[in-house]
Amino acid sequence: MPATSSRISLIRASPIRRIATLLDEARRRGDIISFGGGAPSIPPPRELIDNLTILLKEITTKVVGYCGTRGLPELRELIAEDLKKYWGATYDPSKEIIITDGGTEGIFLALSSILERGDEVILVDPTYLGYSEAVKMLGGRIRTILTNVEKGYQPDLEELKEAISPLTKAFILLSPDNPTGRVIDEDFVKGLVDLASDHDFWIIYDAAYKHITFDRPNPWVDNYSNARERTITINTFSKEASLPGFRLGYSTGPPEVIEAMEKVKQYVSLAPSTVGQYALLKFYENGIKDRYLKEVVIPTYKRRRDLMYELIKKYLPEAKTVLPQGAFYFFVDIRHYLEAMGRDDEEFVNRLLYRKNVVVIPGSHFGDMGKGHIRMTFVSEPESRIEEGVKRMGAFVFSYTV
Amino acid sequence: MPATSSRISLIRASPIRRIATLLDEARRRGDIISFGGGAPSIPPPRELIDNLTILLKEITTKVVGYCGTRGLPELRELIAEDLKKYWGATYDPSKEIIITDGGTEGIFLALSSILERGDEVILVDPTYLGYSEAVKMLGGRIRTILTNVEKGYQPDLEELKEAISPLTKAFILLSPDNPTGRVIDEDFVKGLVDLASDHDFWIIYDAAYKHITFDRPNPWVDNYSNARERTITINTFSKEASLPGFRLGYSTGPPEVIEAMEKVKQYVSLAPSTVGQYALLKFYENGIKDRYLKEVVIPTYKRRRDLMYELIKKYLPEAKTVLPQGAFYFFVDIRHYLEAMGRDDEEFVNRLLYRKNVVVIPGSHFGDMGKGHIRMTFVSEPESRIEEGVKRMGAFVFSYTV
Repeated sequence: MPATSSRISLIRASPIRRIATLLDEARRRGDIISFGGGAPSIPPPRELIDNLTILLKEITTKVVGYCGTRGLPELRELIAEDLKKYWGATYDPSKEIIITDGGTEGIFLALSSILERGDEVILVDPTYLGYSEAVKMLGGRIRTILTNVEKGYQPDLEELKEAISPLTKAFILLSPDNPTGRVIDEDFVKGLVDLASDHDFWIIYDAAYKHITFDRPNPWVDNYSNARERTITINTFSKEASLPGFRLGYSTGPPEVIEAMEKVKQYVSLAPSTVGQYALLKFYENGIKDRYLKEVVIPTYKRRRDLMYELIKKYLPEAKTVLPQGAFYFFVDIRHYLEAMGRDDEEFVNRLLYRKNVVVIPGSHFGDMGKGHIRMTFVSEPESRIEEGVKRMGAFVFSYTV
Repeated sequence: MPATSSRISLIRASPIRRIATLLDEARRRGDIISFGGGAPSIPPPRELIDNLTILLKEITTKVVGYCGTRGLPELRELIAEDLKKYWGATYDPSKEIIITDGGTEGIFLALSSILERGDEVILVDPTYLGYSEAVKMLGGRIRTILTNVEKGYQPDLEELKEAISPLTKAFILLSPDNPTGRVIDEDFVKGLVDLASDHDFWIIYDAAYKHITFDRPNPWVDNYSNARERTITINTFSKEASLPGFRLGYSTGPPEVIEAMEKVKQYVSLAPSTVGQYALLKFYENGIKDRYLKEVVIPTYKRRRDLMYELIKKYLPEAKTVLPQGAFYFFVDIRHYLEAMGRDDEEFVNRLLYRKNVVVIPGSHFGDMGKGHIRMTFVSEPESRIEEGVKRMGAFVFSYTV
């Protein structure tokens, strides 16, 4: 076999995939409760699926045919109207919006469009594990600014200032955040935009969970002055429409960047899936999206969040966490228990799965600051199972600490 | 706005997209006949769509949920059985197959997994325009070996030998070929595999049109001795299942390469679309694929091919072309007419569209050897429209040559 690329050794396989393999094995043994991957368990709006089945019968060839690389113009127009409605921001659907194969492709295309080899990208630690690997694959370097539970996982402007160098090409902001559920403070956004202006770097604003907030709305970075010309937003239908298997999302940005992203996409995936886009046209009709968010998504996740919070306090009393303001994750500092057990977070996760059939994600996968933590999602299991799962975790740590 | 990446200036926007824009404008004017993009006009097998609508009703959350990065295990198992059945080659579905977002992503992931900066990739000229841009985006360099209509578009082993250098990392073979319809000679494949062994380079075998042959079967590169350990095959459901808008395909290769492709895919698109994979499970059931190919795909395209050939001879008597043995394109040498007109192939295409509402693709987009040629596909229009379209082309060139 000839050699594979050194690019491959720069990146690590997603550790969540390793968990998935463990999970497959564990499933054979029986009853697994998953607080692991962020895959919605609530169905998408019924109207979308019904409409898709009608379209598949009526205009099959169109629904399964190619579309342009930027995606269906009618979907981009609806997205522009929606962004106007929710955030008051105006986008030209033909120049400033591109449909992507989920948020993951949005991030890859955005980074491909701006990064030179050796450029630095500043990330918050802890953060979503996909960013650093995409940056490294494209020849970029990572700098991090640290947050922790005491700061409510808010990053610090002074630390950001210190991390900026002449090589800084971008800062990636995820809000609401994965793994911490933190909604970013407006002051930080304001300061970030000023620094990005002064030092001429990009803001990649990952708004994957933008609609999933429980206590206060999420700021829209493009609404801050001077932000538009240096911000690329990343959006996905995986979370707000509960349609991860459609692999669809969208990005906004200055026309030059959207054009660059389109150019890259032509040779990465040619075009987004047409079939899912046709289903999504219905998402923006007759207040379906509004109702789905207000009546299904937010109340369901809020109930689960509040419940999981109470359960963590009750069954894992020595763990430290904050009530997530958005997204659907608790990031839990379990160092007290790990010390008693003499184990690290990865070993904790493996043993918990083996002994109690409960899946959580090791915090160290999200950065150095995540060591001694676990991520627990409440997106996949209904309330009764959340209760059962946290109880099992309580019994698990109890067996080590008495 | 901060700078965009120099990567962007390395690649050109797909010229077929420019044609698509012209096409959008022309459509407003009226009756357009498209011999342009390779988008099937025949519907996919009815059973797939019917089954998908049932699954969408019954197990929505599963059908729209995430799947693993390599795709549904059950689909990979069916693909392995199918490859065994059609080509007699055995693949391990868990280690040697990955589902991709169409053939385009297959090519991108394969090149990402093997290329270092400065590596050379050898292409045939003319060939599919996506390869060179993907190679350049990844920091590779292109070498070409030339073919032409006199050679029946068969590449030459002696020329290949001369193009090999210590920097050669891969050769990309597309058979049946786009834009020429050529099915590769077995002798060339045998020689290619020997050279790849001797000089330790990869063969990327793009088998996008593998089932669409009219006169003789297409060789399967992996069946030649010593090929397996250095061959990555690229496959798509866009052509053989008429499902381009599903954006699904698959690749085979040595386990190490499939693992590398999976790693890259995690950060490029996370996972393939689940919904389309569920539809495709049915493709391999009860001889549906066999029947669809034998009763619909091959006879439909063969009739259109034979008709278009007769029409080209009749209405464009000074054009030179060969009867395509596979795929669904004629590559037509129109230098005689261009000389009379004093125009190049790109101008010819623009004028033909403007004056006669017929879309063809300039040959120069497929390489230097394509200058003075046009590509005409018979995949998009029924026979009556093929007749009307070539007649219009005849009237168009007649107006310049009398």
